[in-house]
Amino acid sequence: MSVVFADGFVTAGVRAGISSVEGKKDVALVVNQGPLDVAAGVFTSNRFAAAPVQYSRERIKSGHAKAVVINSGGANACTGDAGYQQVLDTAEHAADTLSQGITADDVLVASTGLIGELLPLDAVFRGVDLAAKELANDSSAGCCAAEAIMTTDTKPKTVEITGNGFKMGGMVKGSGMIAPQLATMICVITTDAVVTPQLAQNALRKATEKSFDRIDVDGCMSTNDTVLLLASGASGVEPDNAEFEKLVAEACTRLARQIIGDGEGSSHDIKIEVNGAETEDAALACARAVASSNLLKCAIYGNDPNWGRVVSSLGTVPSAVAAFDPRDVTVDINGIRVCDEGKPGQPRELVTMDEREVDIIIDLHTGMNETATVWTDDLTLDYVHINADYES
Amino acid sequence: MSVVFADGFVTAGVRAGISSVEGKKDVALVVNQGPLDVAAGVFTSNRFAAAPVQYSRERIKSGHAKAVVINSGGANACTGDAGYQQVLDTAEHAADTLSQGITADDVLVASTGLIGELLPLDAVFRGVDLAAKELANDSSAGCCAAEAIMTTDTKPKTVEITGNGFKMGGMVKGSGMIAPQLATMICVITTDAVVTPQLAQNALRKATEKSFDRIDVDGCMSTNDTVLLLASGASGVEPDNAEFEKLVAEACTRLARQIIGDGEGSSHDIKIEVNGAETEDAALACARAVASSNLLKCAIYGNDPNWGRVVSSLGTVPSAVAAFDPRDVTVDINGIRVCDEGKPGQPRELVTMDEREVDIIIDLHTGMNETATVWTDDLTLDYVHINADYES
Repeated sequence: MSVVFADGFVTAGVRAGISSVEGKKDVALVVNQGPLDVAAGVFTSNRFAAAPVQYSRERIKSGHAKAVVINSGGANACTGDAGYQQVLDTAEHAADTLSQGITADDVLVASTGLIGELLPLDAVFRGVDLAAKELANDSSAGCCAAEAIMTTDTKPKTVEITGNGFKMGGMVKGSGMIAPQLATMICVITTDAVVTPQLAQNALRKATEKSFDRIDVDGCMSTNDTVLLLASGASGVEPDNAEFEKLVAEACTRLARQIIGDGEGSSHDIKIEVNGAETEDAALACARAVASSNLLKCAIYGNDPNWGRVVSSLGTVPSAVAAFDPRDVTVDINGIRVCDEGKPGQPRELVTMDEREVDIIIDLHTGMNETATVWTDDLTLDYVHINADYES
Repeated sequence: MSVVFADGFVTAGVRAGISSVEGKKDVALVVNQGPLDVAAGVFTSNRFAAAPVQYSRERIKSGHAKAVVINSGGANACTGDAGYQQVLDTAEHAADTLSQGITADDVLVASTGLIGELLPLDAVFRGVDLAAKELANDSSAGCCAAEAIMTTDTKPKTVEITGNGFKMGGMVKGSGMIAPQLATMICVITTDAVVTPQLAQNALRKATEKSFDRIDVDGCMSTNDTVLLLASGASGVEPDNAEFEKLVAEACTRLARQIIGDGEGSSHDIKIEVNGAETEDAALACARAVASSNLLKCAIYGNDPNWGRVVSSLGTVPSAVAAFDPRDVTVDINGIRVCDEGKPGQPRELVTMDEREVDIIIDLHTGMNETATVWTDDLTLDYVHINADYES
């Protein structure tokens, strides 16, 4: 059901001919039919933010939007004024096509694909036209939209959650270039709850900080990351703030987890949990350092519980960032304490790595109990294949 | 000639049986016969510094040393008090074996190999005994020593430079886990110049900052990085400070360049030069960000001049670290301006990447002209093979 699980939304995903992959759907449209048109967004902090990010980041400041046009097959990043004009033209065209009182200012735009090329604008327009005719709120439409935003993803990623009298659904794409502070990911979450723009924005910001900001496929931050939350108010239910924030967080976490599960070429999902830190920031810095180790990621691909590559990464975190004594640190891999007080613990031969998920639990033993978890993927031959062959 | 190119040194490299690779030489000994015994060292900043690093870092503070024992086949890192005792025992054993007025305090120790296992100390002792008998100052001895310190290196790496009346030689090992702030590398540079410990230390620190600190094979900092400079004074020539510093810098740069040329599984050496920055630190931060992009490194492996992956990495550098306007940035790959003022420039099809070396030149166009260069390797199928299969 994806983005149409919640009431008040229609969607479509169509083939417009932007993507060079034969038959690949490449334009998705999501329309909020109200009564509310609340919208919130979180975007990449990359300084080469793509034209659609520059545009949508500005538009979302109003707290309102009625439609989102998303294309795969081209990022429209590093395309200068001409690229920005393409976004304006797309929003204008979508508003004209959808009519129903929708103006260009009500339309958000997101793109994903290769950096540095203008979009084939006629194909984008064609996609919008086709999608506008197919708008629906059934599961087929929801699935087509989730497919249309995919690039190197191998499967659509969606979520549906039921709250206390209201619903929330969503879709995400993202597989490579996934790193702290978002990722090459485009995510649309919809809800029929009655919420204010402020609550929507706060809930989304908090949720992304603990979900999309804590996954790292390959340490590469994208120019196009976009996470949108649209609220229609169609349920008529005004949820408790805490409950709403919790549901947004759950939607983001479940979608983020699916990105890791579909990481480019990956064979293992790696959970890196750091406990016993003085602060959450310290725990997070340690988890990120370990998650970014190519050597560790290769070892996990080889089913090798190489804890030396865990601690050598941990040891690169400056003391000022995370206080700990290396002689206190323990590392458990899949339940086996392979490193105890900075020294060899139980034999690594005891560790089994047959499952896709690998749990690495690090305890800094500082005497405090702050914690953070980051998810990453292993680094495989297929990752290199995919990224060496990806069309220039 | 390696470490015996300069007068006053003897060396040997032997098979002791520490390395699990059949027939692989695994113990090297370098002895400074004087008349001076000046020594300087630069070590990893990893907080899980290996036992030999902890020991040698302490010893080098005296500014003097007469011998270095190096083993491959085991890092003696994360081995606790027992590992530290192994270093003390090794130094003691080497002093006893070499005699000639050499005490344990005169002996430095360096190790490389797998983290988290104690060394087979009897094999280390046997290696020291064998090497002590084979000490010589001919090119065969120099080559054997350079071979004995290798791990995943595919070839020995040495340098010989002649100064104004004095000589300098050196050897280095390092292939993976090579990252900013040194690398899994062990380097010994020798000279017969007459220098003070202060000059030696200053020259070595400055040289490593511009050489070994500016290469990055895989973003992984080692627990065992050790760079040593030994001066025998045998030439009787006291060089000009500036000339001496220049030669040490040249030796380090040439050895660092060889590490990149032998990066694990690599098929391209990638030079990332950032110009037009406000400060050298800003240029360096930009170069490091680009050098650490797995996506770019995969693209280069695929002979794809994917400048989108250059700018998306550049865009992750915070404004506070490096001021620049994305709309001013140019990127040249092998002489073709593929990105001009943040937009597509000349067609990327014009770029040829047949040569091993790939030059990426980024100009931030801030109006200032500070610059920095970082070297890295591409990310290949062989890199993943090597690091997934490396014995746990």
